[in-house]
Amino acid sequence: MKAIRLSEIAELLGGELVGTEDPWITGAAGLDHAGPGDLTFLIRKKLLDRLKESGVAGVLIGPDQEVDLPAVRVDDPYGAFALFLERLLPDRDRDFPPGVHPTAVIDPTADVAAATSIGPYCVVGPGTVLGTGCRLGSHVVLGADVTVGEGCLIYSGACVREACLIGNRVVIHSGVVLGTDGFGFLPGKNGIRKIPQVGIVEIQDDVEIGAGSCIDRATTGRTVVGAGSKIDNQVQIGHNVTIGKMCLLSAQIGIAGSCIIEDGVTMGGQVGVADHRTIGAGARIGAQAGVAGDIEAGATVFGTPAIDIGEYFRMFASLRKLPELLRRVTRLEKRISGGSDKGSAAHDNGQEKN
Amino acid sequence: MKAIRLSEIAELLGGELVGTEDPWITGAAGLDHAGPGDLTFLIRKKLLDRLKESGVAGVLIGPDQEVDLPAVRVDDPYGAFALFLERLLPDRDRDFPPGVHPTAVIDPTADVAAATSIGPYCVVGPGTVLGTGCRLGSHVVLGADVTVGEGCLIYSGACVREACLIGNRVVIHSGVVLGTDGFGFLPGKNGIRKIPQVGIVEIQDDVEIGAGSCIDRATTGRTVVGAGSKIDNQVQIGHNVTIGKMCLLSAQIGIAGSCIIEDGVTMGGQVGVADHRTIGAGARIGAQAGVAGDIEAGATVFGTPAIDIGEYFRMFASLRKLPELLRRVTRLEKRISGGSDKGSAAHDNGQEKN
Amino acid sequence: MKAIRLSEIAELLGGELVGTEDPWITGAAGLDHAGPGDLTFLIRKKLLDRLKESGVAGVLIGPDQEVDLPAVRVDDPYGAFALFLERLLPDRDRDFPPGVHPTAVIDPTADVAAATSIGPYCVVGPGTVLGTGCRLGSHVVLGADVTVGEGCLIYSGACVREACLIGNRVVIHSGVVLGTDGFGFLPGKNGIRKIPQVGIVEIQDDVEIGAGSCIDRATTGRTVVGAGSKIDNQVQIGHNVTIGKMCLLSAQIGIAGSCIIEDGVTMGGQVGVADHRTIGAGARIGAQAGVAGDIEAGATVFGTPAIDIGEYFRMFASLRKLPELLRRVTRLEKRISGGSDKGSAAHDNGQEKN
Repeated sequence: MKAIRLSEIAELLGGELVGTEDPWITGAAGLDHAGPGDLTFLIRKKLLDRLKESGVAGVLIGPDQEVDLPAVRVDDPYGAFALFLERLLPDRDRDFPPGVHPTAVIDPTADVAAATSIGPYCVVGPGTVLGTGCRLGSHVVLGADVTVGEGCLIYSGACVREACLIGNRVVIHSGVVLGTDGFGFLPGKNGIRKIPQVGIVEIQDDVEIGAGSCIDRATTGRTVVGAGSKIDNQVQIGHNVTIGKMCLLSAQIGIAGSCIIEDGVTMGGQVGVADHRTIGAGARIGAQAGVAGDIEAGATVFGTPAIDIGEYFRMFASLRKLPELLRRVTRLEKRISGGSDKGSAAHDNGQEKN
Repeated sequence: MKAIRLSEIAELLGGELVGTEDPWITGAAGLDHAGPGDLTFLIRKKLLDRLKESGVAGVLIGPDQEVDLPAVRVDDPYGAFALFLERLLPDRDRDFPPGVHPTAVIDPTADVAAATSIGPYCVVGPGTVLGTGCRLGSHVVLGADVTVGEGCLIYSGACVREACLIGNRVVIHSGVVLGTDGFGFLPGKNGIRKIPQVGIVEIQDDVEIGAGSCIDRATTGRTVVGAGSKIDNQVQIGHNVTIGKMCLLSAQIGIAGSCIIEDGVTMGGQVGVADHRTIGAGARIGAQAGVAGDIEAGATVFGTPAIDIGEYFRMFASLRKLPELLRRVTRLEKRISGGSDKGSAAHDNGQEKN
Repeated sequence: MKAIRLSEIAELLGGELVGTEDPWITGAAGLDHAGPGDLTFLIRKKLLDRLKESGVAGVLIGPDQEVDLPAVRVDDPYGAFALFLERLLPDRDRDFPPGVHPTAVIDPTADVAAATSIGPYCVVGPGTVLGTGCRLGSHVVLGADVTVGEGCLIYSGACVREACLIGNRVVIHSGVVLGTDGFGFLPGKNGIRKIPQVGIVEIQDDVEIGAGSCIDRATTGRTVVGAGSKIDNQVQIGHNVTIGKMCLLSAQIGIAGSCIIEDGVTMGGQVGVADHRTIGAGARIGAQAGVAGDIEAGATVFGTPAIDIGEYFRMFASLRKLPELLRRVTRLEKRISGGSDKGSAAHDNGQEKN
């Protein structure tokens, strides 16, 4: 990045310069990776030592924090850092040059007039409509009758199949496939028969979908991803699933058909959810959990099958004691058996003494 | 969909109209999602209440079922429903327009004359042959010397590498990679050396492969997917694996190298199978299971390492009692220890009394 | 393959022909799959029976091995077999024809003069540089300001986003996405805000990345894959991760943000690693493990949460005895309770007798 004075950053972020120095900032990083010349941010006091070691040039701090370094005080250090990073984003026009590339194959019945950028080798099907300000990388494929809202960003190689609906400000990364056939088959005497998948996928406003993720079209009706939800890479969402608003789904999650994921659900990586399950609003599903039943709103679960996270960890702690427990029980059995023999013997002795 | 009379549906499906009404049908859905105007189907009696609530216009019922709604009686309600859905499929010519798109790059030594449709920006390598009626979306890449049978459907962005064999009526979804190099490396003193992967992939008739799935070419010989097997999205199949006929593999499964999966095996999502394992015919592997050993034909297994599903659930039920069990054993130990003290004391008392 | 005399193979591999026969070799395979006419190799004596049954024409053996078949003695039979397989690789020029295909869209400010092969429909962004001898399949997308070293092989449909650095002799398979945005979001009152991802991905020399794998660009700084590491298909690597040299990562692994994987780490398939964890040099992580804490150098771990593999398997063995253990403890409790009643009774009796 181009060097910038810390005082300019304070002004940019609406914060207050703390201390008498006004160093040049030449980079930015979280504390894990920050070094000399960098701007960083502080959110946990216990990282003060790490902050000193890092040699950073400046730090964003919260209202109640004090540091021995040049700093900018803001209401929300991490949020302000995110805002600063936006300055460092590359010029979008460099990767998504304005205009329609001459190699794009656009059906004459498609309406792409409002789009800002359509890259080389895009293919846009009949009846498809792109909203104002959309940018498509190269090799993006939109099937027939797709509707894309305003301000969407679709990276190279993503594919949206026929009739799907994409809202406004949706970000779709490379390798994403939306609207592929659900896995619906009917095993019978004469082989395995395909259930036609004639529904669609609806992606609501402000959703982001990570590279390589797949969302199946509904058998009939819609597979839905609710407004503001964010989906990481390589996630698989089955047919007829409904995902609520503001959910956060980490990488490599698989959600089987017809599940209902309510608003504000958070899932760690590699979670699996069996078909037809409901996960209540605000539930948190730990990484690699296997959800075999419904999950209550607000619950935090872990494990396969997924259970309350507290119970899981107690269970797991107990489990580590199990080999020893087996030995303890064996000793008890011997002792009871031996002890009662002894007892009898003692008793006999007693009797003998009698 | 265009509205259609229930009596027309009865005729279409070879069923019998039950009741005196003949409503217009304007949609179709499974009971989970069905509503007014829809055609649905009934397979479980316990869903009769749900059926009444749904407000559907008509229902497909089996030979022994009775309902209070306009209905069509057929031998197999779900199968008939699937047949009806085929009417709702979009016109294939709209997404796969007949003819070879002028932007397709087809090697002069390839034989694609029999194909019905080759989309924009497809690349077909030297020596490659496409069978009668094949349809390729856009950006499909077929390497050198690939053979594709009759009536295959290959969606946009799928890739089949050199020399692979694809049977008849195979469906390959977007983002699939067939014939990529197997993960064969030989760690040694001078680094990690690549084992050349010189085999191929053979996909037999009527196989369907979901979006983003990868099947590795064999080191030598063939990686095989047997006739009629269906593979969901994001599945990974390693080199030299043999998958039998009529298997159903759910999303995100990983099968390591040289496994033999016999006919009719069913696997839930996210299953992992270690290399060189054999899974016997008809076995069922529960979601997220980790198969560490061979599995017998007909077995149903679950967990990591995968064991008999009954044992797994008994084990898991026991496991939830483990923290309490630890306390019970500790109490027993105290009691035995205390009890035997008491016992001794009592005995002593007895002796004293003596 | 073209038939070749075993004596020629001996010469090719610098080995010694053993026995008096010099058969024609018409194929090659590992013992699992080898049959008549094949060359195979022997690394474990216990496979001698399998070797005899296989009917192979010849076998590569080590310095101390003896067989009853035509053989070539070499220092390292598997390594020599790998070397032989290289002869069977298809002519690279057939799949990556030399020259720049006229349909490739190459920005005038990109420098691709040193590359050997650029396939149809590749898109190379402004400021991007390709090293000597690079080969790109079709539909490869390199964003702006990407640097690719010498001798890299990038298969069709792979995508490298802006500003990433690729070393020498790197192999990138189809469907790979390098430099996609990390999953960085900040939930707040006004929705979930995206943390700009302004760092890059650095892939060092001799790395291979399997089909469909995704590596996220760093929030700031670099996500790094160290020299010589090999990554299988469908692996997901989060932002700011550092992977050391000579690591082997199997398919479908997910590594969350900011992890440090030191040199020589090996991971089985479907492993998950929580964010900000460190895995020490040479550690081995068993398939499907969920790494929740740091792992010591040289450790071998398994399970979720991942623990020492020996402890895991003892624990699992104990676990299978748990349902029976519950019954044993219940019996003990009854006996203690009953036994102490009995004991009291006996004692009473004893007292009565007194």
